[in-house]
Amino acid sequence: MIQPPALKQGDSVGIVAPARKIDSMLIDTAKAMLESWGLKVEIGQHIFVDDHSYFSASDEKRIHDFQTFLNAEHIRAIICARGGYGSTRIIDRLDFSNFLQRPKWITGYSDITALHLMLQSIQVQSMHSTVPALFTKPDADLSVAYLKNMLFGERPTIQVKADEKNRLGLANGRLIGGNLSLLVDSLGTSSEIDTSGKILIIEDVGEHYYRLDRMMVQLRRSNKLKNLSGLVAGYFTDIKESVLPFNETVKDIILNHTKEYNFPVAFNFPIGHEEPNLPFVEGANAMLVVNEQEASLSYKKELINP
Amino acid sequence: MIQPPALKQGDSVGIVAPARKIDSMLIDTAKAMLESWGLKVEIGQHIFVDDHSYFSASDEKRIHDFQTFLNAEHIRAIICARGGYGSTRIIDRLDFSNFLQRPKWITGYSDITALHLMLQSIQVQSMHSTVPALFTKPDADLSVAYLKNMLFGERPTIQVKADEKNRLGLANGRLIGGNLSLLVDSLGTSSEIDTSGKILIIEDVGEHYYRLDRMMVQLRRSNKLKNLSGLVAGYFTDIKESVLPFNETVKDIILNHTKEYNFPVAFNFPIGHEEPNLPFVEGANAMLVVNEQEASLSYKKELINP
Repeated sequence: MIQPPALKQGDSVGIVAPARKIDSMLIDTAKAMLESWGLKVEIGQHIFVDDHSYFSASDEKRIHDFQTFLNAEHIRAIICARGGYGSTRIIDRLDFSNFLQRPKWITGYSDITALHLMLQSIQVQSMHSTVPALFTKPDADLSVAYLKNMLFGERPTIQVKADEKNRLGLANGRLIGGNLSLLVDSLGTSSEIDTSGKILIIEDVGEHYYRLDRMMVQLRRSNKLKNLSGLVAGYFTDIKESVLPFNETVKDIILNHTKEYNFPVAFNFPIGHEEPNLPFVEGANAMLVVNEQEASLSYKKELINP
Repeated sequence: MIQPPALKQGDSVGIVAPARKIDSMLIDTAKAMLESWGLKVEIGQHIFVDDHSYFSASDEKRIHDFQTFLNAEHIRAIICARGGYGSTRIIDRLDFSNFLQRPKWITGYSDITALHLMLQSIQVQSMHSTVPALFTKPDADLSVAYLKNMLFGERPTIQVKADEKNRLGLANGRLIGGNLSLLVDSLGTSSEIDTSGKILIIEDVGEHYYRLDRMMVQLRRSNKLKNLSGLVAGYFTDIKESVLPFNETVKDIILNHTKEYNFPVAFNFPIGHEEPNLPFVEGANAMLVVNEQEASLSYKKELINP
């Protein structure tokens, strides 16, 4: 697994928008913030062109901007401006050959999970993290501070108080995951999630309980749960009832579809569509400890590349 | 491909509820209707037990009822009472060995698409059709009449007026499909849809445009579109905008993600979550003709079993 080099003061980064349309004010603020970290910031050429009602720009223009930063030797990280929907329309048309010669960090979450899975399929680590569109959200400080520290090479442990529904245990494995809908959306494709021996992190927003259940069933039926090393549940935000109440909590749904396995399960990790949304490194070697007092996710030193 | 025998007067059929909870009044009416066709009707033992807030009964009880009718030699068709959600929770735990010795028709749509795909994976034809919960819906007469005729062995052609967005052509192949969400939900699983050389029928209800787009992208990315013989779009009902308008019609979304292929595409087929919802036989050999005047879907004589 290739680990892109940590950022240094004076490095250049590029902001792209591979998914939903974005607000230019938010990007201006995010740019100033990244500059305050000592970075030079370039903005994708077409991120404000407004030639599609939903996407930040047409597929061709979003591909152009992303490809430009993938190829540009001086760009040391690609910061995805926001999620929404749209990454899967373009990921198969990106050419990662230059990028593989000089890997760089790619950051984002939610719809950007699709990109992380594509990067996992080519064995390059990436950074699941908050996005520029949310840098100025109230209470985003911690998420942004963690992102900065991690881009500059730190690997802080995430510790959370024990949840009574946690399943205790110890897991070692590479981290993978993100938005549950996008994980399921990868099934059958060239960037299908490979969970074997890994610590899987899941979060979601705005889904119905029955859909959440259906997605967990699909993961189980596609054998993506049975060989996990561990499971970490982040935030499940605004989960809704449908015509009939489902009357099962998110935790119970997750436990129900993993009850035949023995790996540890930890809830309430600060990852997802709420603050703080702390970053994690997709593809990094990590250890999950779930005991009576707490659950913690910590990074191991990488001995070799890959 | 195994074709279950047509029903005859005096045959017994069983009503089960593998998914959402059902209204007993509607089942009473449907039972009377099936009896008026000269059939004997048995009702699954647990379909009204009410031990789950959403499903008609617990997984174990739904499995019990379905398995009982799969095994019962005298039951010549299994009529699924309604969709909703729930079939994927039980299909892997059904034992089809007795059924394969004496195949029988299984009917339903929407969530029941999951069952149809499971039956396709074991090479048995089944009947995508309206459900007892909707037999008394206003304007359901045609859907119900077609279901009766087809269960008793008729294979009527479906003809619809040409839509200006249709892509003209001729396709031959076995029919497969149903609810788009459930087709995508099969990816990566043991009942993954096999579309190669087939005529694919899709319909959906209550989705957002961006989700519909995402599902079409997943089908394309999983190579389920490129080898189609033809594509038939039924009803796409109550398709909704999200935070930002998507500004593409359902037809344009479908055409966009199939534009690199040459198979015919026909819109407005009376199949899905509106009336009439005409049945089609999953796994049957059919011909799709799409010309300037009309589109028609007709059955071919099956020469051999399987």
